[in-house]
Amino acid sequence: MGWIFNQRYFRENLKLGPGGETGPINDLLRSTTERIGANVMGKRMFDQGEVSWPEEAPFHTPVYVLTHEKREPWARPGGTTFYFINDGPQRALQLAREAAGSRDIRIAGGADVIQQYLNLDVVDELEIALAPVMFGGGRRLFENLREPGPQFRIDRVLDDPAATHLRYVRK
Amino acid sequence: MGWIFNQRYFRENLKLGPGGETGPINDLLRSTTERIGANVMGKRMFDQGEVSWPEEAPFHTPVYVLTHEKREPWARPGGTTFYFINDGPQRALQLAREAAGSRDIRIAGGADVIQQYLNLDVVDELEIALAPVMFGGGRRLFENLREPGPQFRIDRVLDDPAATHLRYVRK
Repeated sequence: MGWIFNQRYFRENLKLGPGGETGPINDLLRSTTERIGANVMGKRMFDQGEVSWPEEAPFHTPVYVLTHEKREPWARPGGTTFYFINDGPQRALQLAREAAGSRDIRIAGGADVIQQYLNLDVVDELEIALAPVMFGGGRRLFENLREPGPQFRIDRVLDDPAATHLRYVRK
Repeated sequence: MGWIFNQRYFRENLKLGPGGETGPINDLLRSTTERIGANVMGKRMFDQGEVSWPEEAPFHTPVYVLTHEKREPWARPGGTTFYFINDGPQRALQLAREAAGSRDIRIAGGADVIQQYLNLDVVDELEIALAPVMFGGGRRLFENLREPGPQFRIDRVLDDPAATHLRYVRK
């Protein structure tokens, strides 16, 4: 994630202080964020974020968290409200569609939740920041997929020293 | 591999007929091939190639095949000779270095052999053609790696509709 901390839009959004790059990666970050009307994420991602996001969580939309935990909605300053969904990915998607209106829905992560939506065949675009860091472990993005899996074409590639930003669109 | 069949250098090399693209991807293919003085590959890759390469195999260098099979060198027209090495990756690399002289050595594949050389910490560059095709199975390139693994930086990205050509260089 190192690439994101030097982008001005991200720094402003998380109130990390002045400065940051304003080039095409920053534009990508801004446009991707601004066209999102609702987010969906998994419990692992939420649990990590709950302890590390600032009080003003960086989504500014409804966020539907797929979980078995029963919990009341959690509203944060700045327009982010987390809703805890116990009825599976299709129900979360339905709620996200109603909330997003004409804007797009982001499946924020992690890998397991992205795989669930790939397997529901509802993913129109993939935006991937590919950085040459070998973890040696962790969850893989493209596994546990139904066959035949969804087919994507390369839509755009942004080249940056810290990461290669790949945008794929469903065929 | 679809991207490669429409590149002129590849078509000429495999005598696939006239035509093909002559842009930066073709230049990359030519320069990568021409700076190689020896190839190393695994038995799986060799077995697949033995039945599908043309009589004039497309390497035009010595090729060291890592295998448990004992077999005499196999010379093909056009300068490719396959040597079958039973003494492990370091011995194959030593022979490849002697044969290549001042030229480079390519670890051609497959994934298992590339991992063996990554774990020997002798890989200076990675050239990857990344295409959005989900196989749902097969060998993964970056697994079974020692920790800490080798560290690479992005050197160059070539954007093409059929594949994204990523070149990483060791830090």
